[in-house]
Amino acid sequence: MYGAIMHAPRDIRYQERDEPQIIEPTDAIIRLSATCICGSDLWPYRGFDNVHDLAMGHEYVGVVEEVGSAVSTVKPGQFVIGSFFTSDNTCEICRDGYQSHCVKRVMMGTIGTQAERARVPLADGSLVATPEMPPTDLVPSLLAASDVLGTGWYGAVAAAAGPGKTVVVVGDGAVGLSAVLAAQQLGAERIIAMSRHEPRQQLALAFGATDIVTERGADGVAAIKRMTGGLGAHSVVEAVGTQESMMQAIRSARAGGHVGFVGVSHGVSISGTELFGAGIHLEGGPAPVRRFLPDLVDRIWRRAINPGQVFDLTLPLAEVAEGYRAMDERRAIKVLLQP
Amino acid sequence: MYGAIMHAPRDIRYQERDEPQIIEPTDAIIRLSATCICGSDLWPYRGFDNVHDLAMGHEYVGVVEEVGSAVSTVKPGQFVIGSFFTSDNTCEICRDGYQSHCVKRVMMGTIGTQAERARVPLADGSLVATPEMPPTDLVPSLLAASDVLGTGWYGAVAAAAGPGKTVVVVGDGAVGLSAVLAAQQLGAERIIAMSRHEPRQQLALAFGATDIVTERGADGVAAIKRMTGGLGAHSVVEAVGTQESMMQAIRSARAGGHVGFVGVSHGVSISGTELFGAGIHLEGGPAPVRRFLPDLVDRIWRRAINPGQVFDLTLPLAEVAEGYRAMDERRAIKVLLQP
Repeated sequence: MYGAIMHAPRDIRYQERDEPQIIEPTDAIIRLSATCICGSDLWPYRGFDNVHDLAMGHEYVGVVEEVGSAVSTVKPGQFVIGSFFTSDNTCEICRDGYQSHCVKRVMMGTIGTQAERARVPLADGSLVATPEMPPTDLVPSLLAASDVLGTGWYGAVAAAAGPGKTVVVVGDGAVGLSAVLAAQQLGAERIIAMSRHEPRQQLALAFGATDIVTERGADGVAAIKRMTGGLGAHSVVEAVGTQESMMQAIRSARAGGHVGFVGVSHGVSISGTELFGAGIHLEGGPAPVRRFLPDLVDRIWRRAINPGQVFDLTLPLAEVAEGYRAMDERRAIKVLLQP
Repeated sequence: MYGAIMHAPRDIRYQERDEPQIIEPTDAIIRLSATCICGSDLWPYRGFDNVHDLAMGHEYVGVVEEVGSAVSTVKPGQFVIGSFFTSDNTCEICRDGYQSHCVKRVMMGTIGTQAERARVPLADGSLVATPEMPPTDLVPSLLAASDVLGTGWYGAVAAAAGPGKTVVVVGDGAVGLSAVLAAQQLGAERIIAMSRHEPRQQLALAFGATDIVTERGADGVAAIKRMTGGLGAHSVVEAVGTQESMMQAIRSARAGGHVGFVGVSHGVSISGTELFGAGIHLEGGPAPVRRFLPDLVDRIWRRAINPGQVFDLTLPLAEVAEGYRAMDERRAIKVLLQP
């Protein structure tokens, strides 16, 4: 089969790879219906993470082709969605809702789903099947649930978004925009998207943002304070991962407020003294997407939400290198790849 | 009147100070029945914080002598307990339970309660009166509620201590020991006190600790992992404030677990990458003691708890300098001062 390999920063090639095989009896093999490029894939693409000859991709929807002997909840022919960490969904950590930290987790990023087919470990605990084969127009939204929607949703839940709350979202990538949608679905009263990119502002508004703030850093924090009676927001989602965005998030929250951080941290250092003084709740990390997946699939199936709008460029998988370029140059929010 | 002044590190003097006066109509003047030395007072004593000629002390119980014209909930003759930040208890932040971040807060540490009398700003929102004058033996426990019990309690609540939970307490000072007591009262299943000091271990056990771990740092974390099936604890209270103790706390918690940090941070820096990977909840800062104070006073009044046991040395206020020495040299866990 063919798939995407990152040979070095900015060197992505579509090339032949070994066909996936069932290795463990808990594995499934899926044929990808769609896959995509993640904002976090840009970290190694831009040279911030060390990679050599790495199979890329960790987002996936597809049709089950084969299952191992121990798999009982999904079967060949079903359309399934999984996420970037597989999980047994039965260990203590999973039962607490933190499936991305499952004691048996496998990073799908080490398998590489920007490919025609993929092995999914722990299929029973990781994959959620749709009621039937989805109509084509739902596929982008189901794919979004695999990562960006699930991650934005977790960010909003970690930030305690809900009725009566003012929610700030730092970051206007696909995860940030999904966090806006999540905050809207969770009933937030006011949703402030921090964005200076007009197309992304438009999508934020379509997803439920009530306000747009274009300032960043200290100016952005000052704007949030002005809009919240000097107190700061109840809930802040951090969806970038830099020092500036993390501090912007922490400083935008009121005492007693919640910050959910889902941007993959790169070079972030938090001062204990500042955090002690802030009096906030801080929760984040790789999103336990599996916790939310059944609910997200249901909302998509009922057409209550349309998170697939984050995909503003669709390319054949063979043109994956152009997809990375488009996202790197911010010509696209998120690229869907068709195998 | 007389009170304690820190002229420089290790230079505490009992000397004449101005009599406190009603300044704002929301003020009260109290005559101190008892006051004490806080573990956090040792930071400036040891030269870690800059101080010159500072009136010391922020813990207090006493009898109201005079109230401003706007004070309506406490009156002269009542025995009252307050905490280290005064609060109006009516602003949005207070109503959310974060009174230590009240928009009108005043640090009692800037007033100095290691004295015969003290002005308490925002008396209505800050002071809690006992049903009647307390018997002498309850005074130490009521004084403990003013800070260390309230702080340990907040740490345990922030760490989500409760039924079915394994709680770890890092730090065996009066706050850490109070957190053990709080975890016990909150119904925790297992309470692991990290302490290498035998008298403190004994008090931890008396307060409800089920296990003592003497290792620190990486060895301490490894011990906690061994005791929790490799997962880490559900709840961890950090009650020291150093880099080592903070990382010990974070690394002792399981994914999805809660760390409540109440040690005053000194030189602590938290890696975003590590926090992202940990998947924990982190909440802390100066404890909103006022949130818990009515409940704590009630438990003490009913003799359900005896937190005053943290005071293992009682001195006349005039001997305050010896009190600092005793705590600095760890000859005493906590020193009660009698004006």
